[in-house]
Amino acid sequence: MSSKYPWSVRGCLPLCALTLEAALILLFFFFTYYNASLEDQEGLVASYQVGQDLTVMAALGLGFLTSNLQRHTWSSVAFNLFMLALGVQWAILLDGFLSQLSPGKVVIKLFSIRLATMSAMSVLISVGAVLGKVNLAQLVVMVLVELTVFGTMRMVISIIFKTDYHMNLMHIHVFAAYFGLTVARCLPKPLPQGTKDKEQIATRSSLSAMLGTLFLWMFWPSFNSALLRSPIERKNAVFNTYYALAVSAVTAMSVSSLAHPQGKINMTYMHNAVLAGGVAVGISCHLIRSPWLAMVLGLVAGLISIGGAKCLPDWLPGPPLHWGTQLGHGDSCHVWSPDRFAPKSQDMESTSCGQIF
Amino acid sequence: MSSKYPWSVRGCLPLCALTLEAALILLFFFFTYYNASLEDQEGLVASYQVGQDLTVMAALGLGFLTSNLQRHTWSSVAFNLFMLALGVQWAILLDGFLSQLSPGKVVIKLFSIRLATMSAMSVLISVGAVLGKVNLAQLVVMVLVELTVFGTMRMVISIIFKTDYHMNLMHIHVFAAYFGLTVARCLPKPLPQGTKDKEQIATRSSLSAMLGTLFLWMFWPSFNSALLRSPIERKNAVFNTYYALAVSAVTAMSVSSLAHPQGKINMTYMHNAVLAGGVAVGISCHLIRSPWLAMVLGLVAGLISIGGAKCLPDWLPGPPLHWGTQLGHGDSCHVWSPDRFAPKSQDMESTSCGQIF
Amino acid sequence: MSSKYPWSVRGCLPLCALTLEAALILLFFFFTYYNASLEDQEGLVASYQVGQDLTVMAALGLGFLTSNLQRHTWSSVAFNLFMLALGVQWAILLDGFLSQLSPGKVVIKLFSIRLATMSAMSVLISVGAVLGKVNLAQLVVMVLVELTVFGTMRMVISIIFKTDYHMNLMHIHVFAAYFGLTVARCLPKPLPQGTKDKEQIATRSSLSAMLGTLFLWMFWPSFNSALLRSPIERKNAVFNTYYALAVSAVTAMSVSSLAHPQGKINMTYMHNAVLAGGVAVGISCHLIRSPWLAMVLGLVAGLISIGGAKCLPDWLPGPPLHWGTQLGHGDSCHVWSPDRFAPKSQDMESTSCGQIF
Repeated sequence: MSSKYPWSVRGCLPLCALTLEAALILLFFFFTYYNASLEDQEGLVASYQVGQDLTVMAALGLGFLTSNLQRHTWSSVAFNLFMLALGVQWAILLDGFLSQLSPGKVVIKLFSIRLATMSAMSVLISVGAVLGKVNLAQLVVMVLVELTVFGTMRMVISIIFKTDYHMNLMHIHVFAAYFGLTVARCLPKPLPQGTKDKEQIATRSSLSAMLGTLFLWMFWPSFNSALLRSPIERKNAVFNTYYALAVSAVTAMSVSSLAHPQGKINMTYMHNAVLAGGVAVGISCHLIRSPWLAMVLGLVAGLISIGGAKCLPDWLPGPPLHWGTQLGHGDSCHVWSPDRFAPKSQDMESTSCGQIF
Repeated sequence: MSSKYPWSVRGCLPLCALTLEAALILLFFFFTYYNASLEDQEGLVASYQVGQDLTVMAALGLGFLTSNLQRHTWSSVAFNLFMLALGVQWAILLDGFLSQLSPGKVVIKLFSIRLATMSAMSVLISVGAVLGKVNLAQLVVMVLVELTVFGTMRMVISIIFKTDYHMNLMHIHVFAAYFGLTVARCLPKPLPQGTKDKEQIATRSSLSAMLGTLFLWMFWPSFNSALLRSPIERKNAVFNTYYALAVSAVTAMSVSSLAHPQGKINMTYMHNAVLAGGVAVGISCHLIRSPWLAMVLGLVAGLISIGGAKCLPDWLPGPPLHWGTQLGHGDSCHVWSPDRFAPKSQDMESTSCGQIF
Repeated sequence: MSSKYPWSVRGCLPLCALTLEAALILLFFFFTYYNASLEDQEGLVASYQVGQDLTVMAALGLGFLTSNLQRHTWSSVAFNLFMLALGVQWAILLDGFLSQLSPGKVVIKLFSIRLATMSAMSVLISVGAVLGKVNLAQLVVMVLVELTVFGTMRMVISIIFKTDYHMNLMHIHVFAAYFGLTVARCLPKPLPQGTKDKEQIATRSSLSAMLGTLFLWMFWPSFNSALLRSPIERKNAVFNTYYALAVSAVTAMSVSSLAHPQGKINMTYMHNAVLAGGVAVGISCHLIRSPWLAMVLGLVAGLISIGGAKCLPDWLPGPPLHWGTQLGHGDSCHVWSPDRFAPKSQDMESTSCGQIF
């Protein structure tokens, strides 16, 4: 796949995502705080379960439905997770800023996480129209722009028609379809014909490892809050784990792409790094009082996880890293191209979602 | 696969299912209404979660367990969803009629949906004995007959032995196994030997798209009710989404088979049509006061979704339809037979579950 | 695969597991009872849902993440379930004994099941470092030793530092990683090089059947308790179904290995036997007052399920057993090696997790 762009451009894409992530953490540092009381009359666990259902829909449902496409099976699931993790961070800030009349700090509640997940799903729907035509940086821009447009539109509608959250949001399907279609029309050039035959045959291992990663990622807030007795502590644990995981998913994707000479993504590293945030925040998750601290922990954990996997010397006899997956350092093909039908797809390319290059 | 029956017989099968669906909507129109109060003392969300678990067991657990069979992997998951969606509609009517002494309208409660899901699971168990020997129409008849027999038997037992719901229903495994065995014995002729080698190698895409569709289908009631504050509105939203999705799954299966010249099922169309009911009912789901309206919306949405996908002109550059899956109109093989090991299984045959034809 | 050990050694391994299971049932008989009251202030269903999330993480998340390894895809998911089912039984006893100062009976609560599941996850993490180097008996020993060490360490920490459950348990990741690494170092010899090329290409059927089995196994307590009205009865139903399923999973694995001449595991038999406990306990699950009775039912159900499948005469025309999967008795290859790419992997070998033999 000959590229018209020098390597530096490729290398710059993940750096953009990392910088954006740092900026988001700064925004959270200055503008958000947790609600110290229990806001939901229906009970913490019940409210959390509804949010959990939405996350399952977004990560598994939309992720796998869009992976319908021929050439992007597993990358599309990974990119779906990346956009979801980035989208919920931006949406929660945006919803907070737009919903308050006078400037002030944004309160993070279970309901606002629910709302942010639903807003982020608009991007996951739209992206089906452009998948395979955009690269990582374009995806990041699309997440930010679409969520801003969607949030503004919802606010305008709610002011004009005096409608509630449900009525504002339920045109999400129409909005997302047309937004995706518009983006697809605006993209400079179509997929080159010659690359059509390039097949990324996903391996059996990547299927199961991706399923496992997603299930752990989705239910980790339950894990970290399961043994806490006080409802306030449980709420804090859920929030902090949620944010640490979101940041570590974005970081894992970016750094994994940055660490590879050709900007590719090593899925095995990523599977572990995505979960690193949940581990890092585990022991102190009920004590952290603001989201930005959890997010910094997630960022650092993602960096260390991939950095360690890259820099560990080869004489280590397949260390279990932290999640016990026996990484074959130096020959990740053991993990990534196990069967003879796909001997060449050792790494998934970060530009598999960006054929323009 | 030479057929002894003319095309008209094949075409008539899906029409039967559609007619039955219309009849069920009429029955719901005349005989059911929602309970305006909150009936469950344990809380709406908690009660809903238990029903959710049952749906996951029925759609994923039983669907994938039965797909163990060699030749019917993905069709069996789709047929499982079809029978579940049809079964819960019939079971809820039947349970309502049988449980009241004097004729009157049937009240739909969360508990009755739970009961209907469990009753419908008896069909999903039985069908393992006959899968691959029956066609779509025979499956429909089996759903209706088995649920009627099971419901009547449960009522008789409860009258004679004065037992409660739990005791009545827990012989479901024995009943379903013997019912399935009996049906298998009564079927006129066994599977012809010659067709044994015909393999339907499911593609990686169909696996992931089916998983995605099922996860979206199962958790859609959570999505449509997530932003509503009032418990009554949330209950209505859950009920209406549930019914719209059930009808649209049945419709999608029937119309997809009807729209194909050889009565085959295009899985890509179906994946979108199955979910169309949830989208159609989304914005007004908390305002609809009777199930039949939601069911009509689901029926219309399923019809439009497949009709639109069939009739859209080819010059459209891969419209994202509504769920963003980039349908290659005119060459659905892009989606359905992506790898070289299964180059001929472009469409799944509706008669893959009916080798008698 | 030539073995240095006679058949009797292989045959003895599953017998060990069965004996251990019987010993565990005796321990439960003498030392445990259910709490007759409702202990959780947050409500039964909410508390149950959190435990459910943990089970999903353990069975699906960790099971599939570790199946990343090349040669052990599906066996690792099955062994993961085996270790989880064995681990929760031992952990609940151990936690009970360690947490009480004076000797006495152990009370089983929803919270203790939650704690036991999290403890058992330490083994599932560690095992990633040794998978492929240990056999079934070594795995059983590892489960018992690691849980005992982990439990003792947690007790010592809680006494010295006066910390609560959450703080004690959250070093689980570090502990599990180092424990697994230590075990891997202590194992006598590495994997022989010659066996590296042996591939166990999992079939599509085994993927879907395993997914189906896991989803049914995880949500069966919901199924058995869904129609009960009284909270106490529902709690008992959940507990009894949980224990019956745990025992029947351990039994299924052991007996399936015992019943095969070469100690291999027939996955099709296992899929049904794993679920047999839930069926056996179904009708009386709310009436059983102590866990050992449910465990005996699970043991007997597992034995009968596999014994019946082995001993049934061949003239039966594909009986639906109880879960309706059309077992081809005498030619299980129909089920187990459906596609032409894996014609020889008819049965999964129990020693696939024990290459030392």
